[in-house]
Formats: sequence, C-alpha cells, structure tokens
Amino acid sequence: MGFNQSAKAIIHHFTEPFQFETPYMGEPEFIPELFMAYESWGDPDNPAILVCHALTGNTHATDPDAPDDWRRSWWPAMVGPGKAIDTNQFYVLCINILGGCGGTSGPATVHPETKTRYGLHFPIVEMEDIVCSQKKLLDALGVKRLYAVIGGSLGGFQALVWGRMYPDFVDRLIVIASSAYSNQFMILTNRVQIDAIQMDPLYQEGNYLEDNPPDVGLRLARMVGFTTFISPITMEKKFSKYHASQREPYADASFHQQMFHDAENYIRKVSAPFTTDFDANSMVYLLQTWNHFDLAIKYGSLAKALEPVLAKTLIIAATGDNLFPPYLSEDILKALEATGKKASLTIVDENYGHDFFLKPNIILEKLTDPIVRFLEK
Amino acid sequence: MGFNQSAKAIIHHFTEPFQFETPYMGEPEFIPELFMAYESWGDPDNPAILVCHALTGNTHATDPDAPDDWRRSWWPAMVGPGKAIDTNQFYVLCINILGGCGGTSGPATVHPETKTRYGLHFPIVEMEDIVCSQKKLLDALGVKRLYAVIGGSLGGFQALVWGRMYPDFVDRLIVIASSAYSNQFMILTNRVQIDAIQMDPLYQEGNYLEDNPPDVGLRLARMVGFTTFISPITMEKKFSKYHASQREPYADASFHQQMFHDAENYIRKVSAPFTTDFDANSMVYLLQTWNHFDLAIKYGSLAKALEPVLAKTLIIAATGDNLFPPYLSEDILKALEATGKKASLTIVDENYGHDFFLKPNIILEKLTDPIVRFLEK
Repeated sequence: MGFNQSAKAIIHHFTEPFQFETPYMGEPEFIPELFMAYESWGDPDNPAILVCHALTGNTHATDPDAPDDWRRSWWPAMVGPGKAIDTNQFYVLCINILGGCGGTSGPATVHPETKTRYGLHFPIVEMEDIVCSQKKLLDALGVKRLYAVIGGSLGGFQALVWGRMYPDFVDRLIVIASSAYSNQFMILTNRVQIDAIQMDPLYQEGNYLEDNPPDVGLRLARMVGFTTFISPITMEKKFSKYHASQREPYADASFHQQMFHDAENYIRKVSAPFTTDFDANSMVYLLQTWNHFDLAIKYGSLAKALEPVLAKTLIIAATGDNLFPPYLSEDILKALEATGKKASLTIVDENYGHDFFLKPNIILEKLTDPIVRFLEK
Repeated sequence: MGFNQSAKAIIHHFTEPFQFETPYMGEPEFIPELFMAYESWGDPDNPAILVCHALTGNTHATDPDAPDDWRRSWWPAMVGPGKAIDTNQFYVLCINILGGCGGTSGPATVHPETKTRYGLHFPIVEMEDIVCSQKKLLDALGVKRLYAVIGGSLGGFQALVWGRMYPDFVDRLIVIASSAYSNQFMILTNRVQIDAIQMDPLYQEGNYLEDNPPDVGLRLARMVGFTTFISPITMEKKFSKYHASQREPYADASFHQQMFHDAENYIRKVSAPFTTDFDANSMVYLLQTWNHFDLAIKYGSLAKALEPVLAKTLIIAATGDNLFPPYLSEDILKALEATGKKASLTIVDENYGHDFFLKPNIILEKLTDPIVRFLEK
C-alpha cells in the first residue's frame, strides 16, 4: 500500500468471506477475505481499551519513537505510559477502520480474484460494519471484554455503536467531540468534499490509475475539511498576526495575480501531504459512512437506538466545536438518560474548535482528569 | 455577455482610460475604457441612495415585473415603493461592481484593442477601485450627493470605503452583515473557492474557452460558499425533516454507490445555475478583492481608516451570522466611536445565518424599522 501505513501496524488476514451488516438492494454484501490492521500497547493480560480513530485516522495512536510526529503518533498525549489511556495499566488497541486505507480492507485493497483494487465495487460501509469487523478482530486476538472504548469525532460514532451492538462486551464508553447522528452542516460540507474528489477528471468514476490519482480533488476536499476543524477564533489567533499587507505577486506563474495570506499558504501546505497519505475512494466511502450515520433514523429514535447499552458512558464536548457543537452531545446524554443509563456529560470551556481532542495541551489540561476519574474502578 | 445581465441594466461607456487606485509592482494600472452597468428607480430629483451589492450580485436590486424571482430581484423587500429604501422618496441606484460580470468592466470584458477577454490581464481590483469607479459613474449621471449608501456583506465594505474616500459626498452609511476587514475564516474559505476554480483543468490559467468554461470548479466554489451562507441551525430546520433513511442507489450511474440526502441534492441544485450566471475569472478576482480587504492593515488601524468619515453610520449584525459574526460589527462601531463619529450598532436576534439580510421576512420584520428611522431627516 502506498498510504500512511506504519511499519508497526500488524495486519490480521481473515481468509473467509466477511459479510456486511446491511444488504444492498436486498442482497447481502460481502468481501471474499478481510484484512484488519491494528497496533497495540501494554500487557495483553491487562484490561483492554479500544481506541477508535476519526475519519482519516490510522492505527498509529502513539509511537514512543516519534511522539512529536503527528503522522506517526496522532494521540500521544492521550495514549501512553502515565497518560489518560495508560498503557502501563491497560492493554490498548487501535484498529484501522473498514473502508480506510491504513492496512484494513477498503476500496484501495486488491481483490484476491480480480487482482485489481475494489474501487467502487467495495461494499458500502456503515458504522455497524466497522464495529462488527473490529469485534471479529478482537475475538481472533482473544480479547474477551473491553474495559472501555474511546473515540473522538467519527471515533465517538464507533464507541456508541459498540455500546449498542455488543452490550455484554464493553463496560465503558468515552465519546468525545461526537454525536449520535450527522447534522445537516456535516452532510453538506461532506458532500462538497465528495464532489471535489469525484469531479476531478482523474477520478474516472473511481477507476483512477494508482500512479495518477485525483490528487487535486482530494486536496481540495481536505482544504474544505480544514475550514471546519478549527474554530474561526483559532484561525484568527493562528494567522492574523502574519496577515500580509503588501500586494505581492505569487512566485508560481501558473497562479498569476495571486496574493496570498499566510492562512492561505498554510491551508494548502497542510492539505498537500494528505494526497500521499490517503486514498481518494477511501475518503469518498468514509465521508458517505459519516453522512449516513444517524442512530435516530436507523432505530426509530436515539433512545431506542441506545436502549441496549449496558456500559456507563462519559460524553465530552467543547464549547467552541462548530463541527460537533455541544447540543449533539446533550442529545446523546438525553437519549441515554431516557432509559436510565449511567451517563455523564462534560462540556469543556475551550474555543479551539473541533480538533481540540487531538491537541496535546488541551488533552493534558482539560480531558485527562475527567477520563482518568471515569476509568477508575 | 452571457451572464445574468438584465436587459434593464444601463451600460455607461467611459471611453477614456480608467486608472486603478493601487499600483501593481510599482506601476500604475489602468484599463483603456470603462463600462459601468447600473439600474435606477425613482425620481432623479429626489435625494439619492446607492445600493451596493454583495460578492456575486448585480444591478437587479429589484424588478417590479419579477419581485419573486431572486435572479431578477435580489433585494425586493428592501428596495421599492414603501419599502425601507423607498423608491417613492429616494432616487435609488444600484451599480454592478468593477471586476464583476453584470455589465461593468471585469475580466470577462473584451479588451478594445486585443479583441479578446481581459482574463487575468485585468488589473487587480481592490475595494477602493470599486468605489472610485462608482463615484465616476455618479458624477457622469449628475448625482451631486448621496443621502445614503447601503450594502450587506461585500456591499458593506463598499459603504465603509465610500465614507472614507468621499466624506463630503455621502451623508449616511448603512453597513449590514459586514466588517472593516476580512477575518481568517473568510480568507480560508475564499481561498478554497479560488483553488476550486483554478484547479479545474478547464480553467487553463484563466484563458478558458468562452464556450467551455471551468463550470465544475465554479460550481464547487459555490457549494463551498453555500456552506457559509446560512447557519447550521437553518440547515437543520430546512433539511432534517427530509432526511433520507433508506440506502437508495443514485439514479445516475456515474455516481455509483451514492446515497443522497435532500440537503446534498439541494446544495448541488442551487449551485448549478451559478455557472451560467457568473464568470469564473470574475469570481476569482472578487474573492481576492474580499480577501485583501482590511482597512486596519491598509491605513494603520481601523480608527485611522475611518477617521475621515463624516457620514453618520448605522451598523446592523445578526447573532447567528457565522460568516460575519457580530464582533466584526462591534469593531466598526469602536473604530468610529474612537474618533467621535455618529454611529450606532443594532444586533438583530436572528439565527438564520449570513444571508439574513436578503431574506424578505427578516428584512420586513427586523431590518426595516431601524433603517427607516435612520433615514428620517
């Protein structure tokens, strides 16, 4: 694979077919074999905690060899020895999600019979398929029970689905910066991202060449995403002091008559590596998985959807998260309380924006204490 | 022109060169002739009010023959007989902005010597150039004084610049849903839109064919813009009840495996006509004009920038405007008050989102009274 798949990820190969939870046009869907990529930390005899990554994440929650490289350690302040998810106390696993491109089966995986990538022939992925494949891997690894499932953003979707699909298997859910359904802003901004990829002429209806993928569309999609990951206030703090005041021609003649602010250079620069780290079809699939995540619609109401949950739940939201505003977390709390579940909501006073749950200083100052207390026996 | 230029617009042709305010690389810039498109309503002997349109607007503020067609009447609830901008009391003008494509000179205009479109050879447009060209037209039309200048969003930028450039010419400024500078969120989201257009292979570094323009990029840009025009709350009200619950294949095979919500269909549908209404280079130019609008940087501080203003100013903002949040209006007020100007700020309790100033019911219920009172002698 050409994507950001750490050499440290272990790939578990299931040679039997994997059936998806939801049929398509009435027909059950399956893939003939299943790869599941994961990494783990700590003693397997300790209680197990599953760390669920967000949309474009991977198995590299933390790498002691590269704690400051976000491409090799996306959650080092949260996961590690003495951290909130303490690898001295717990056996911690992080699994690349189905449909992704970090080693687990997805549209960029080669089909064993056709010897070509699945592309758009990969079955539609719903959150239940992701969680079901994670359960299959944990069973294979001999994990008998999860002390906790923790995730932010799309990782929080997984934690909630874990709670309802496998109530006897999981004792605690930690749902950060997340929701029990996609709101219409997410649906719209995700649609713009999908269209940006699919309208790139190189996309070729999903059959793009491996060495000539729709990088322009993928990069544009990432730029759209970026405008939602941090708050306008954070953008102002981050960029406004560097605000360009002169009219300067842009060095690249192909962008004649451009005048760039540092913010504009930054968003282009941070979006560029994404095209080597991620597969365009994976991005399309997972954005659709996100857009179709709605436990209320799927199960009649949020309360009905979460009725099977036996785990106790900690929900964390931040005031300045415009992508997953706190009302979405309040909706989870209400739904859990409606059927008498043990649940609590912590709203952190923090205006950083949606990515607050990934920022080391915010994790250490504002998230570690509530999580450590919640995980105490 | 192939764009949304009303048959009702009058094109004033200045046959002498028009010099831009800001030199480029130290050299003065000019175009050999200038077209200015405008429409007017009411008796020219009445006090004159200039209505300034927003980014992609045009001269058609109102059309008594088509008050319900937003492409022919973009502000019918604000401008008309008995309306806040009362065409029975005032001589009302609306001028298409320099760099636009509604009849006024812009990159889609044909250069008189080369007989080809200016394209990226059109000089960079700054807000001062727009206002200076408007003044030139008003002088030609014999307008001696403006009773008021009113505008929302980019129209508000124009009103502020009118106040500082021609203090003796304008008595009142009405600045709605606007700012005295672009914040970093605007700069980022505008950059994504510019890139969406320029990365379309049909863009051809601005030299696209008239009959094969970069429609895909322009439409994507509009979709990005749309995610900022109304608030997430409005999106929820507008779309969530139609939320799709079934996995349905999309009819168009080229979008295999798509599952659309009504919100997604809507954003695509509303963005489609934009490609026939607007020129891609115009959009690039005006987004850059927006991104470079910063009176504080240009003149040292907002207070210094607005120091020359003699007009009294009414500023209106709305609580749920995420694109131009009320703090930006507060900054205008503070800057005006710092040098003892007559100014007041009305913050409307309205969560519709940035486009509130275009919505007829909001105009009638929440904007008309403060504007009518402000315009009283």
